[in-house]
Amino acid sequence: MTGRGDGANRRTALRLGLLGAAGALAAPAVVRADTPVIWRMATAWPADAPGLGTAAASIAQTIGVLSGGRLKVEVHPAGVLGPAMQVFDLVSSGAAELGHGSPYYWQARDPAFNFFTGVPFGLTATEHAGWLAVGGGQALWEKAYEPFGVVPFYAGNSGVQAAGWFRREIRTPDDLRGLVIRISGLGGEVMKRLGATPVLLGSTELYAALDSGTIDAAEWIGPWNDLDLRLARVAPFYYMPSFHEIGAALELIVGRKALDGLPDDLRQVIATATQAGAAATTAAFAGGNILAFDRLARENVRVARFPEGVVTALAEASAAVLADLAKASPMATEVHDAFIAFRAQASAYAAASEGPALAWREAAIRR
Amino acid sequence: MTGRGDGANRRTALRLGLLGAAGALAAPAVVRADTPVIWRMATAWPADAPGLGTAAASIAQTIGVLSGGRLKVEVHPAGVLGPAMQVFDLVSSGAAELGHGSPYYWQARDPAFNFFTGVPFGLTATEHAGWLAVGGGQALWEKAYEPFGVVPFYAGNSGVQAAGWFRREIRTPDDLRGLVIRISGLGGEVMKRLGATPVLLGSTELYAALDSGTIDAAEWIGPWNDLDLRLARVAPFYYMPSFHEIGAALELIVGRKALDGLPDDLRQVIATATQAGAAATTAAFAGGNILAFDRLARENVRVARFPEGVVTALAEASAAVLADLAKASPMATEVHDAFIAFRAQASAYAAASEGPALAWREAAIRR
Repeated sequence: MTGRGDGANRRTALRLGLLGAAGALAAPAVVRADTPVIWRMATAWPADAPGLGTAAASIAQTIGVLSGGRLKVEVHPAGVLGPAMQVFDLVSSGAAELGHGSPYYWQARDPAFNFFTGVPFGLTATEHAGWLAVGGGQALWEKAYEPFGVVPFYAGNSGVQAAGWFRREIRTPDDLRGLVIRISGLGGEVMKRLGATPVLLGSTELYAALDSGTIDAAEWIGPWNDLDLRLARVAPFYYMPSFHEIGAALELIVGRKALDGLPDDLRQVIATATQAGAAATTAAFAGGNILAFDRLARENVRVARFPEGVVTALAEASAAVLADLAKASPMATEVHDAFIAFRAQASAYAAASEGPALAWREAAIRR
Repeated sequence: MTGRGDGANRRTALRLGLLGAAGALAAPAVVRADTPVIWRMATAWPADAPGLGTAAASIAQTIGVLSGGRLKVEVHPAGVLGPAMQVFDLVSSGAAELGHGSPYYWQARDPAFNFFTGVPFGLTATEHAGWLAVGGGQALWEKAYEPFGVVPFYAGNSGVQAAGWFRREIRTPDDLRGLVIRISGLGGEVMKRLGATPVLLGSTELYAALDSGTIDAAEWIGPWNDLDLRLARVAPFYYMPSFHEIGAALELIVGRKALDGLPDDLRQVIATATQAGAAATTAAFAGGNILAFDRLARENVRVARFPEGVVTALAEASAAVLADLAKASPMATEVHDAFIAFRAQASAYAAASEGPALAWREAAIRR
């Protein structure tokens, strides 16, 4: 009990940056060791995926520099240590000390994990970070991963994603029936309930699949990541925003045993490098999407928006999916209830602040 | 020329976290020094100001831990090394190695500085971070501070602020005429053009000033910071959102000479600690405001919104203020043009993404 409580307190202190210099000085043997510790980081991305593989590499590099070379992190792209969808298992088993991915990829371990990426009509990037930091989210996340010996750190957010590239226009909920669409996570579940067929394909497969008509639509991330796929030629309608990922969080995960074996100052190095990476990654997506959206307009991509009737149908199906998710496991019940309560507060605040502020600005600029 | 170019490249590398472990290992003398370097951080806040003084202290502590005690930072609240509004000058002159504040406080040095905090109808927290990271903002910021021997690092954002506490309702632009209002920065300039009288008071002075009728209204930050001031008793209308600070950035500033005297790894420590602090601070404001807004509703504070006619008048006056600001100095011209171009792109993107996403969610929850 004491041991466990201490661990939780230490984790909280680590997260809040409260470990004093004493912690660092308490491990002189490690500080002066000449043989660096080498850790493996399994990632769910190709090494060069913007904001994903590049973010993982950046965190690894920062850890190396800040540790003065005492802790070196070898970054492995998806497929090297294991498939992308097994990063969590690799860290849980100790086959990798670190992982970089997105919580919903491992939702087969516990459906509760979905909430730590994001859910349909969920939280924006900023709100999600706020939920983790002061709304109780981080403690729930740590609790959900604890049975698997995995410790989660927030590593940034894609921001509002796009609904994706469609070969034909979507006018009513009936247009979704029979649609074969590349879409991941809970968004796929929602689409299924409206009669669509969600499929999972990698980004490099999308062009051929849309061109041949194997699939009718495909969502990937947002303008920054999507534009280079050149999908406008084969799927001329680019729908924005998405209903299912208005913020999708990234994570760095660490094996509990590996983390506990480090001196306090190197634990702080990992926490700080990841938190800095979160800021850099969220900013890169935000700025990258803004610049890419401008390019998209200049390239005459047809930007479209789901009409109200379609959004209503998606919202109803999403509510049903969430209601089922809430019953999927005891942990999912606990996280669902906490997430939904915070979402209501976040939405009420956004309706009084960010919402009108954006509308006022848009009107001021158009004047 | 070469020296300056190298400096710029090193700064860019530092910002992007690209300094390799080689940099760290190149300074063994400092790495093993037993006498810590002690730096002074001047701040523009009381030590316990939430998200401000606390954020400065957290960055200082992280620097101490990550440097293994080699670099210790003493944090000085406003008034100790000099007045709050002189933090920039203290760092510029070398009286302090570090400063924590907000760029618009030093706009007397160059009006261009205003853009690095935020301007009326400007950028949200996420957009501002995106502008700095990939939209060219950081390079301009460094250029603007360069003549003063000061290097800026982004340290987070308050998010959408509130328009503040008003003793009476604001129905038309005429209601602003003659209003004595505590409001800072460019927002004050805008109010002045509409016939109000902007004044500057510290947060602890607001209650008495509103109670006695010395002032008619007062903006401070947002729900998280405002609620504890208990102003609802003396100014019953709480207007949200603000028109002038929909995102207000914080900064860590470092004296150029002091920074150049550090080995590369300690420069990386400062950059990473500040970037991590930016993530923590923005999240604390976001979550703190959401929770405080909920409390505010339960405490029956009367939340109000400026009517359209008032917003239009504020937008017109803001455009005039910005047009004048664009002519205020060569640097202000350059930054103004870049900022305005990015704002147009950010606003177009938000109108297609964050705006409808927030509206859809709000409708989905209310169903």
